[in-house]
Amino acid sequence: MASNSSNPAGAKVLSLETMNPRVRVMEYAVRGAIPIRAEELTAQLKAQPGSLPFAKVTPCNIGNPQQLKQKPLTFLRQVSALMEYSELLAPERIEQTRALFPEDAIARAQRNLAFVDGAVGAYTQSLGIAEIREDVARFIEKRDGFPASASNICLTAGASGAVERVLDILVSGPEVGVMIPIPQYPLYTATLAHLDAQAVPYYLQEEHDWQLSIADLDRALGEARARGVDVRALVVINPGNPTGGCLTEANIEEVVRFCERERLVLLADEVYQTNIYTETNPFVSFKKVVSRLGSPVELFSFHSISKGMIGECGRRGGYYEAVNIDDQVMGQLLKLASVSLCPNVQGQMAVDIMVNPPQPGDASHAQYTAELDAIYQSMRRRAKKLAEAFNSLPNMSCNDAQGAMYLFPKVELPQAFVDEAAALGQQPDALYCMRMLEATGISVVPGSGFGQVPGTFHFRSTFLPPEELFDDFIAGFKGFHLDFISRYAGSQQ
Amino acid sequence: MASNSSNPAGAKVLSLETMNPRVRVMEYAVRGAIPIRAEELTAQLKAQPGSLPFAKVTPCNIGNPQQLKQKPLTFLRQVSALMEYSELLAPERIEQTRALFPEDAIARAQRNLAFVDGAVGAYTQSLGIAEIREDVARFIEKRDGFPASASNICLTAGASGAVERVLDILVSGPEVGVMIPIPQYPLYTATLAHLDAQAVPYYLQEEHDWQLSIADLDRALGEARARGVDVRALVVINPGNPTGGCLTEANIEEVVRFCERERLVLLADEVYQTNIYTETNPFVSFKKVVSRLGSPVELFSFHSISKGMIGECGRRGGYYEAVNIDDQVMGQLLKLASVSLCPNVQGQMAVDIMVNPPQPGDASHAQYTAELDAIYQSMRRRAKKLAEAFNSLPNMSCNDAQGAMYLFPKVELPQAFVDEAAALGQQPDALYCMRMLEATGISVVPGSGFGQVPGTFHFRSTFLPPEELFDDFIAGFKGFHLDFISRYAGSQQ
Repeated sequence: MASNSSNPAGAKVLSLETMNPRVRVMEYAVRGAIPIRAEELTAQLKAQPGSLPFAKVTPCNIGNPQQLKQKPLTFLRQVSALMEYSELLAPERIEQTRALFPEDAIARAQRNLAFVDGAVGAYTQSLGIAEIREDVARFIEKRDGFPASASNICLTAGASGAVERVLDILVSGPEVGVMIPIPQYPLYTATLAHLDAQAVPYYLQEEHDWQLSIADLDRALGEARARGVDVRALVVINPGNPTGGCLTEANIEEVVRFCERERLVLLADEVYQTNIYTETNPFVSFKKVVSRLGSPVELFSFHSISKGMIGECGRRGGYYEAVNIDDQVMGQLLKLASVSLCPNVQGQMAVDIMVNPPQPGDASHAQYTAELDAIYQSMRRRAKKLAEAFNSLPNMSCNDAQGAMYLFPKVELPQAFVDEAAALGQQPDALYCMRMLEATGISVVPGSGFGQVPGTFHFRSTFLPPEELFDDFIAGFKGFHLDFISRYAGSQQ
Repeated sequence: MASNSSNPAGAKVLSLETMNPRVRVMEYAVRGAIPIRAEELTAQLKAQPGSLPFAKVTPCNIGNPQQLKQKPLTFLRQVSALMEYSELLAPERIEQTRALFPEDAIARAQRNLAFVDGAVGAYTQSLGIAEIREDVARFIEKRDGFPASASNICLTAGASGAVERVLDILVSGPEVGVMIPIPQYPLYTATLAHLDAQAVPYYLQEEHDWQLSIADLDRALGEARARGVDVRALVVINPGNPTGGCLTEANIEEVVRFCERERLVLLADEVYQTNIYTETNPFVSFKKVVSRLGSPVELFSFHSISKGMIGECGRRGGYYEAVNIDDQVMGQLLKLASVSLCPNVQGQMAVDIMVNPPQPGDASHAQYTAELDAIYQSMRRRAKKLAEAFNSLPNMSCNDAQGAMYLFPKVELPQAFVDEAAALGQQPDALYCMRMLEATGISVVPGSGFGQVPGTFHFRSTFLPPEELFDDFIAGFKGFHLDFISRYAGSQQ
């Protein structure tokens, strides 16, 4: 039999040359070169304490609150623990269990165990547990004041997999384009590259608190269609990642009308919907606006237990709601879910607690509310403090964080530094962030990982370091930046 | 702006016609028409008890042991519960906790919490927690007697996602082919259809206990290459799904040599490696044979917490080991893992307990071992009993289950029935299984969902119904089949 001519003997069968080129071209900056270097530095500090100019690495590259000591919500963990080891609910142990767990956590564990006939270790329906999808629908109805149906809800292992699944079903070939914001969360560009589809970028307006400009949507769509791109969908991230902006209801309505007019499916990434730090732009869901307008726009809305004040990133739970989606397409989405069997059960159960928390009168209500509020108030204080710090510095400006877990300050990099980066073959903002990491241990993500107006430079930082360490964190960053600017000051305009 | 001509106004933007055709063509029988009908019947029995000729639906279509009342392993659940609600380990509660949990479960929870700095709710490294990957490597070394490295281990959310990821990176274009067994687990055909790659089927030998025939591998490969298919990889499922067969070490060695000679990457789906019910064909890993031969064959081996005696399907945990894989490809696999952030943490923790169970001398050792053995012995008895039942029936023959959780009996369907199915536009085996479901509530998967030699008919049934109900289950099935055969007997040869 002839040997495979594309793979000469001796070389690996599977190599960078022979592998799927659509995987090779994917980029994902949030876990790119800088966090990899941050891991190396963490290992070095463990092996040789004192060997670096800082005592620890501060991971501000990813919204991962519990990594930075945010405490999990007690009620959620109590219920999970009881479902894990449901022998604690057996008659012979229940008295001892009552000494350790509040009555409503026990009742909730019993209620939710009944959804799965006691078996949290069994596969569930592929779309997720029916009763939890009902709870999600009630949560959406209460949030928006418009009907929602469990049959339109699909539970998922976090929002990322859900976004990938929806983009997958949307992209029928390389001519298909999906409009994405710039800056954007790189899941979108990575997934579109993977699917061999075209990202059609539109710009968020930094000078207007990162609102969407319909004029720029028109421009981006027109240019893409003129190139022959079959633009099918529009992605909005609200509250914004990496921007921290919150869209006004008027802006949301304009976007819905735009999608209606241009026949675009709307993907609303709303995972930060409870991370809102502004009174002027409260969170309004795209579902609510679509419902209020009676719009036929086809909408997928994504939510997650990883963000908000829940912060259960490691549990991998979330859901999407599909609105106005064709019935046969819903069947195809079910099939796609089936191949992955089901999202992990404890992630589903945590979604249930997020959408159906303890109510007034329940034993845990006061504690749950207090824990949630403490996390919220602290995040809000830290967001404000970090934005103020960024705005106090030369060559740096930053919109307030209206929402989400991030700030995306603009940095005016001195020309001498930009030239130095060019000589090294690096993106200037990436080099700036790497220098920051090496000097301070603070790990952030360069703006080039999210996209930015050409010639501008940014980075994304979470404001998640613990409050008691926050002043140190800010001092470390300020020291680096001031030193950096003074070093390159000679080249300033 | 011109409206998108491919989507006339009024119709949905996203429809069966406009969606990704590679998703549309996917098939996944394990959760296809029959389980969907089974769910409807379950709902009917709940709403109107007594309205059907059976009292309950018996789901034998999927290896989901805890759905059928298999008890989870106590130690695993105790450790998980303690990690969920780690406040149980706080000094002020530890005494009460000790009354409910054994000392080694407490120690294990403390040990594993330290891996993640106490935060089971945080994202971990994308490849999985480093210490657990070390534990997996030690498990493999002990199993095989050859070195294994944590740097070659990637933790995943079950084996399915891992298989999808590896096939994804292998498939560079529509000319690429992957050899798959027939019958096969439909994840493989579904994923290859999704990737627009070519499934290159080879036949397992039913008459030789489902062993692989190198002659048939040669035939299948030769035919595919003659058609211009760039065959890159070979999938082996051992122990077999749906067949229940276990490969001999000699057969495994032949397969490794074949892959070496023909430059094929080997994908070894070994998720049933502890479900072995034969003395003659003990489980031997492909990794062990590759190591013993010093073979350069590029190998991915998959394992899971869903199967074996663990049976934690709903938790979504697993790993793959990559052997002889190019370093740059390993980097690409890391990138792909990064976009999905990380597998859920409790799934990773359960992998740790699977590969590093309580040891002699530990408080839970006796109980853990006894629970594992009871599940194993019961599965073994049920496998034997079901095979005997199948072999006692007219028009039916079945290999013994040497391994896995399934039997795949051959049914000689009377010609009159085959004609009836043809007239209804249905696969005869699918119609047979649907009749079985409607008559008995037993849900199995038709052989056409896995592939079979043309003109033969099979179905896959788990042997997971609880032992105390097993005789009823067998009686229900026997009654249906005897009635079915006698009804169509007139047409027999």
